[in-house]
Amino acid sequence: MSRLMDRSYLVKFSSRLEEGRALAEDVWSIYNVANLPADCINLGQGYMNFPPPVWLKKAAEEALGVVAANHYSHPKGRMRLREAIKNVYGPQLNRVLDVEKEILVTSGANEGQYSVFTAFLEDGDEVIMFEPFFDQYLPSVTFNGGKPVYVPLHPPSNASGKFSSDEWKIDSRELRDAITSRTKMIIVNTPHNPVGKVFTKAELEMIAALAEEHNLLVMADEVYDCLVYDEKEHFRIANLPGMWDRTVTVGSAGKSFAATGWRVGWLIGPESIIKPSLAATTRIVFASNSPLQEATAAGLEQVQGRKFFQQQLAEYAERRQVLTDCFDTLGLPYTNPEGSYFILLDISRVKFPDDYPFPESVLGRGRDFRACWFIALEIGVSSIPVSEFYCIEHANIGEVYARFAFCKDVDTLRNAAERFKKLVKYIV
Amino acid sequence: MSRLMDRSYLVKFSSRLEEGRALAEDVWSIYNVANLPADCINLGQGYMNFPPPVWLKKAAEEALGVVAANHYSHPKGRMRLREAIKNVYGPQLNRVLDVEKEILVTSGANEGQYSVFTAFLEDGDEVIMFEPFFDQYLPSVTFNGGKPVYVPLHPPSNASGKFSSDEWKIDSRELRDAITSRTKMIIVNTPHNPVGKVFTKAELEMIAALAEEHNLLVMADEVYDCLVYDEKEHFRIANLPGMWDRTVTVGSAGKSFAATGWRVGWLIGPESIIKPSLAATTRIVFASNSPLQEATAAGLEQVQGRKFFQQQLAEYAERRQVLTDCFDTLGLPYTNPEGSYFILLDISRVKFPDDYPFPESVLGRGRDFRACWFIALEIGVSSIPVSEFYCIEHANIGEVYARFAFCKDVDTLRNAAERFKKLVKYIV
Ligand SMILES: Cc1ncc(COP(=O)(O)O)c(C=O)c1O
Ligand SMILES: Cc1ncc(COP(=O)(O)O)c(C=O)c1O
Repeated sequence: MSRLMDRSYLVKFSSRLEEGRALAEDVWSIYNVANLPADCINLGQGYMNFPPPVWLKKAAEEALGVVAANHYSHPKGRMRLREAIKNVYGPQLNRVLDVEKEILVTSGANEGQYSVFTAFLEDGDEVIMFEPFFDQYLPSVTFNGGKPVYVPLHPPSNASGKFSSDEWKIDSRELRDAITSRTKMIIVNTPHNPVGKVFTKAELEMIAALAEEHNLLVMADEVYDCLVYDEKEHFRIANLPGMWDRTVTVGSAGKSFAATGWRVGWLIGPESIIKPSLAATTRIVFASNSPLQEATAAGLEQVQGRKFFQQQLAEYAERRQVLTDCFDTLGLPYTNPEGSYFILLDISRVKFPDDYPFPESVLGRGRDFRACWFIALEIGVSSIPVSEFYCIEHANIGEVYARFAFCKDVDTLRNAAERFKKLVKYIV
Repeated sequence: MSRLMDRSYLVKFSSRLEEGRALAEDVWSIYNVANLPADCINLGQGYMNFPPPVWLKKAAEEALGVVAANHYSHPKGRMRLREAIKNVYGPQLNRVLDVEKEILVTSGANEGQYSVFTAFLEDGDEVIMFEPFFDQYLPSVTFNGGKPVYVPLHPPSNASGKFSSDEWKIDSRELRDAITSRTKMIIVNTPHNPVGKVFTKAELEMIAALAEEHNLLVMADEVYDCLVYDEKEHFRIANLPGMWDRTVTVGSAGKSFAATGWRVGWLIGPESIIKPSLAATTRIVFASNSPLQEATAAGLEQVQGRKFFQQQLAEYAERRQVLTDCFDTLGLPYTNPEGSYFILLDISRVKFPDDYPFPESVLGRGRDFRACWFIALEIGVSSIPVSEFYCIEHANIGEVYARFAFCKDVDTLRNAAERFKKLVKYIV
């Protein structure tokens, strides 16, 4: 690539692309189906191999039949969707949400988060994120002049088999030490991708106390809020005393309704956060797509009557079970996620030949890059190396794990489990 | 608003929102249907009151029935859509486009343009735009650290009745004088919103020569490329010798298929521009919505067989005619647009009482803000004041005009024409 840069960039791209791995080949491209054998089972990327509910599809079709639902929406989002968000999330946030000032529809959670960074970051402002982190945070922050500051979640030191995602812990001293006079924001992703951790009330209180003390914004990335297992309580940091005023809560229709390609998400928070974020999103995308906003509104209007989230949760719990049963048999340590749809498998005891024909793109990265490649090619199941979700200094923590996504139908997961039997001979 | 800022912004928004009118009430909100009488005919905003073609709707419905078309697309865009863009635009650009490197699908043209600014601007880089300009350019540039530099298009000095949009001219000396060592990019919007001008080959050659001389990027915003009337040639600046390498051409399914709410657009250009723009768009939105990308692909695949663009153009020509006939009767000067779907009406001879009950939001702005308000309330037809599309120093040029959009069905336009008869008594 650097040859290309030197010779044929008449006009050089912005220096902001030089940070945050923005122009490098990303992990998604490396472990893309296109690069892997055709029959490889894809548990790498976090999208479903099943469709959104059929009644949601019907609602989308209906919207396509309405003239106005094919044209620009208000940048704040369609009123019907804002009303539906108010009705579903208001009670969970213990308040009557103002659809004009406290709700913003965005083009996926991703663009919503980007807009918040655009709206709030000054050059050099620091944003704290817990490692492993959703990989988009890093360049989204640096593109807006911010500086990511990393605080690792620590896995238990002596795990042998299955252990709860709850055993990944923040070191509160490390968090406190990470805060400087330039810290502007802290991102709390619960339920967590890729750990599956659902932050406890006590953990959130600790974070909240620091946010209050240092006057920080909190971005509560709760896109997996519908996927919390085993009756664990999903606690919202915005609900802690005083925290509403400094918290923006992020949601995603993609995750809630198995429609990742619809690109509908939302932000909920006080006017002081929503208004600047609206100014940002208005320039970035102007408005989000209208027909799928309408369909999402119909979805949220009906979830209660259909008990949709409960039913969907039961389905995901079954999917999780297929993989955890499989990993139990293997006898490798792994996290049992309390939330989201990822399992981290400890692959340090999976042995592969050093001279295995690895592609360039995985050499020179963490050991997990090679392990994931090896497993994909030999076993036929793809996953994502977790060191990608760490800064370089902490990559050794992530190197131990591969992330498997179970947002796939049960048959696919059973097939994957069947294939995993072949892994036994590589375990030492 | 400033009271709110002072008291309740715990964490202050970014200083980038302080420029480019980002937090001010924008012209779209002021002249929004919600603020105007219910029966006002809306010729203000540039979206259609008719649907996309029914065969496109069918394609969208089909896509909704395919699992993968409900999930994440590749950030570059769905392959089917990239292939379709290649097939329609390659011949127009006299080249075989590389679907991997020279085409990027974006969430509307708007987000595509934003991504280019993110990808290329350094703090303080200057971007030249011709006034009047599509209002999103200004904050999209400043949000990315850029500095807008304005070069006015000059209307003819003594127009009495109808005059061609071609009579709006660039002063090449003014353009040259606007270029500094910090100039990075120049935006050329043809066909032009709101003037309707279709830049001639000679004009584009003049711009291209300056771009070559000063090593500038050219953003060719050609979202209205399907709407060029009277056999006028739509010339593409990317086709001039040497210009491919420095030009990114912008398109929009919203404009091409009467589906402004679908939020599908595209960028076409050399790898040196597309690759950094891809890096930007990947972080900003990750990917664009999948079902409507599929539908847009189906649209582009079929335009030729159905002669869709020709038929659509004839319909727009008829719509234009309804308004130009009406304005002829009024006897006020106006531009006859060679392209796009806007007409600028000279409202300097429309008289209104100084003590008319204007809302706060239009007072203290240009005279056109009051004229548009007056016309909307007295005549029942809304429009957009054109000084909004000028920097403050040049607002006096824009103040003379109101922009009427004719992307409305013929009946609506006829009703508007009928109402315009009432305007005669206010003309002096
Ligand atoms: C933690 C987290 N936040 C945000 C997102 C983005 O969601 P969306 O697809 O709605 O942009 C994802 C998607 O994987 C995620 O895992
Ligand atoms: C000149 C110009 N460029 C770009 C756009 C944005 O197009 P899209 O709706 O595809 O984002 C518009 C929309 O009005 C426009 O007039």
